[in-house]
Amino acid sequence: MKKIITINHEYGSGGRLIGKTLAEKLGLHFYDKELIALTAQKSGFTEEFVKEAAEKKTASLLYSLYMTSLPISDQLFLAQSQVIKELAAEGSCVIVGSCADYILREERCFKVFVHAPREVRLKRVKEEHDVQDHREFLHKQDKKRTAYYNYFTQNKWGNALDYTLTVDSQIGINTAAECIARAAEAFFA
Amino acid sequence: MKKIITINHEYGSGGRLIGKTLAEKLGLHFYDKELIALTAQKSGFTEEFVKEAAEKKTASLLYSLYMTSLPISDQLFLAQSQVIKELAAEGSCVIVGSCADYILREERCFKVFVHAPREVRLKRVKEEHDVQDHREFLHKQDKKRTAYYNYFTQNKWGNALDYTLTVDSQIGINTAAECIARAAEAFFA
Repeated sequence: MKKIITINHEYGSGGRLIGKTLAEKLGLHFYDKELIALTAQKSGFTEEFVKEAAEKKTASLLYSLYMTSLPISDQLFLAQSQVIKELAAEGSCVIVGSCADYILREERCFKVFVHAPREVRLKRVKEEHDVQDHREFLHKQDKKRTAYYNYFTQNKWGNALDYTLTVDSQIGINTAAECIARAAEAFFA
Repeated sequence: MKKIITINHEYGSGGRLIGKTLAEKLGLHFYDKELIALTAQKSGFTEEFVKEAAEKKTASLLYSLYMTSLPISDQLFLAQSQVIKELAAEGSCVIVGSCADYILREERCFKVFVHAPREVRLKRVKEEHDVQDHREFLHKQDKKRTAYYNYFTQNKWGNALDYTLTVDSQIGINTAAECIARAAEAFFA
């Protein structure tokens, strides 16, 4: 049976790493940045451009006024949705981010949400990012991610009812991946 | 190390059964209806009365007007809170419902939320309750439980960020208990 696992995660919660570990454990394809590259190719935008635009909710008003068609961010979301649907149609995989849970809502996916308290995530951000104000940086990432998700889906970011399993990553990356693997095994059995 | 696990659950999701299975697996005390009995003894109300009042948010306005002290429901909540704190102080346990997650917010608890789609819960309700309109019955239970939790805590019912782990019970009672046990083991290690 085809196994599609989607993972949404709070910035700095280690959700991407959990997804990667999980994919290795279950021998599944793993899509995250690869997804963006694929989207870029599909939409005709450059990979760099897609990366920057990926978490912006809408283009600026000024830019939009010049556009006669959909705003760039909406065009990108549509292109990305198409890529995600194609990947899911191809076979079992783990997809991190990109509202894949919502885009694949007609499929029977195992949906995961990973989170952690702000201070824990801040610690990870400090280790991984060279920015001036880490707290401000994290705050902005949180706002962007929540706004992006709530704008493009009809769900509300972090609502337990929308997920098969949600987990605080403080239990550990490997333990979280193990729990998800065990639960997904039963879900797809 | 003391292990306190709290479980909130949607009506008919099998959360109580998951809690019981989990407690057996880990060899922990299990509190649910027992809790109500203890509260009853403590507050001086009869067990029957407590049972009926336990999920009412507030007493009727008319009744409240006659009261010079706190409404009955608030008195009960305070008595129940006291019992839960005493149980948690005594040692490791699994506590289902009764806003234990919020009452014990100063303690390092493993917090669980169990849910399932309405149709799945409706099936369980039909098996277990002899009422005329099961759908209406479940709808009322959902409303009562959400209102009770949102009234007595500062959290919002079903918010993933408030829990260490949330799970859709469709993965199975035993699998859910196993996943929680595995995650709790790591959490308390």
